[in-house]
Amino acid sequence: MQTDLLETFISHYKPLVENRLGDAVTQLEAPEPLKDSMLYSLQAGGKRIRPLLLFATLKAFGIKPELGVDTAAAIEMIHTYSLIHDDLPSMDDDDLRRGKPTNHKVYGEATAILAGDALLTLAFKMIGSISPAIVDANVKLALINTLSEAAGAEGMVGGQVADMEGEGKKLTLNELEYIHINKTGRLLAYSVLAGAEIAQADNSVKEKLSKFAHHIGLAFQIRDDILDLEGTEEVVGKPIGSDTGNDKNTYPSLLSLDGAKKALTEHINLAKQSLTTTGLDTILLEQITDLIGLRNS
Amino acid sequence: MQTDLLETFISHYKPLVENRLGDAVTQLEAPEPLKDSMLYSLQAGGKRIRPLLLFATLKAFGIKPELGVDTAAAIEMIHTYSLIHDDLPSMDDDDLRRGKPTNHKVYGEATAILAGDALLTLAFKMIGSISPAIVDANVKLALINTLSEAAGAEGMVGGQVADMEGEGKKLTLNELEYIHINKTGRLLAYSVLAGAEIAQADNSVKEKLSKFAHHIGLAFQIRDDILDLEGTEEVVGKPIGSDTGNDKNTYPSLLSLDGAKKALTEHINLAKQSLTTTGLDTILLEQITDLIGLRNS
Repeated sequence: MQTDLLETFISHYKPLVENRLGDAVTQLEAPEPLKDSMLYSLQAGGKRIRPLLLFATLKAFGIKPELGVDTAAAIEMIHTYSLIHDDLPSMDDDDLRRGKPTNHKVYGEATAILAGDALLTLAFKMIGSISPAIVDANVKLALINTLSEAAGAEGMVGGQVADMEGEGKKLTLNELEYIHINKTGRLLAYSVLAGAEIAQADNSVKEKLSKFAHHIGLAFQIRDDILDLEGTEEVVGKPIGSDTGNDKNTYPSLLSLDGAKKALTEHINLAKQSLTTTGLDTILLEQITDLIGLRNS
Repeated sequence: MQTDLLETFISHYKPLVENRLGDAVTQLEAPEPLKDSMLYSLQAGGKRIRPLLLFATLKAFGIKPELGVDTAAAIEMIHTYSLIHDDLPSMDDDDLRRGKPTNHKVYGEATAILAGDALLTLAFKMIGSISPAIVDANVKLALINTLSEAAGAEGMVGGQVADMEGEGKKLTLNELEYIHINKTGRLLAYSVLAGAEIAQADNSVKEKLSKFAHHIGLAFQIRDDILDLEGTEEVVGKPIGSDTGNDKNTYPSLLSLDGAKKALTEHINLAKQSLTTTGLDTILLEQITDLIGLRNS
């Protein structure tokens, strides 16, 4: 029954954000190779966890998820640009992403870099141009400023640099958590907090959701590391064991595989506990939390 | 006398935006190598033409240029990120910029890409977090949306892709103008139009300033092409004749050197004519126009 609830939710809201992403790029007056490259990565599939988190947060506040579609599209644009740039030869040098050739393998490095830049740039206009009837001007500015923080030097980009700096070094658990809270966690957390912002939640609820978001961010990354060891390339969509080969610091390498699994369970439980303190209707958020903890790809 | 006016203006307002840029990055809580890389390119010198255009436009409306400092810093961050990414090996593959090693030569490709991403991301927060006492929320949103348009797929990034697509092909003058209006012109034009937006100018004045901005954008690029043929590496700060070697389409290659010089004079004159129709106090904007037409680097 409960699984049906989430499945119904996903089947309704995943296409909503995917269509919005497609429309936003298709209608741009821009060179076709650039649009093709942007669309290629936007439409490469994926779970759309971040948009779903935003929609489910709005739902928890009793707000129609449709009101968050432009913000959800902005988040997914930022996530997608980060994947395109991370896959570049000078970064992770990945040839496959979700079972398909990475952007630069298809369109070349220069176009891939520029497609990433264009998606990042477009994300802010997606939020900035939401109808004032849907989101108030000051809320839009708050969404823009916090997105910039979550995605920029103090967030995702900073985490990526710290990750590179840590390669080949033995990190402490704190250092590893710093990397992942920023590299992966901040944008996941933003997806939840943007929902709270649109709902104009009070600060105490925001803090509780922020705690929730912190734990699902770490859970997400730990699950990623475990999948890299235990998954199959076919299901995960990228080469398995690639972290080991790159001298990357991972949760299993620091905590052992069993320790990583225990940490995953702990973060999932703490995430759910934070949810129950909010007093909101968080059934969908709980189910997404399980999805994050148990996902196979 | 008139030159003194512009010199005094530049000596006052250039440090203003440069200090703002330095402060904005220095105070970030982010990995030091990332901040260093961002600061390296922000502080590599340059004429700060775009910030000066914004300040001079505000002055033309009788508004204190200080009110535009965050917007000016945002524009310069976007300009700087575009230079970092353009210089990358997969793009123009330049080793020198303003007489110094390019960002990726000093910090490596990965950090250079991420420093560019971080500057682009920070630019939107620079505008989004201007005090409401200085710029109204709806004006800030208009500044953010038009910056995204000017810098993104429909503007600067689109122009860069079109430029790459045109390499090795013989372009028409219209095709060349499309590239430069977008690649260079849109952000220059934005600098003027952002001033008009902050001044909450009416549409007829905005249109006249838009015409002015169109002509200085093209003049800027034509002067750039002429400098590439006639300048000296020492003064220009990058290898001379690099356009010819790259099979690039330039104004001199399409119009001859003399024809390009004539076109430059024509755009400078048309820019000034547009200014006189605005009824504003445009003495500084006129002098910046001459600076653009006559610059040696």
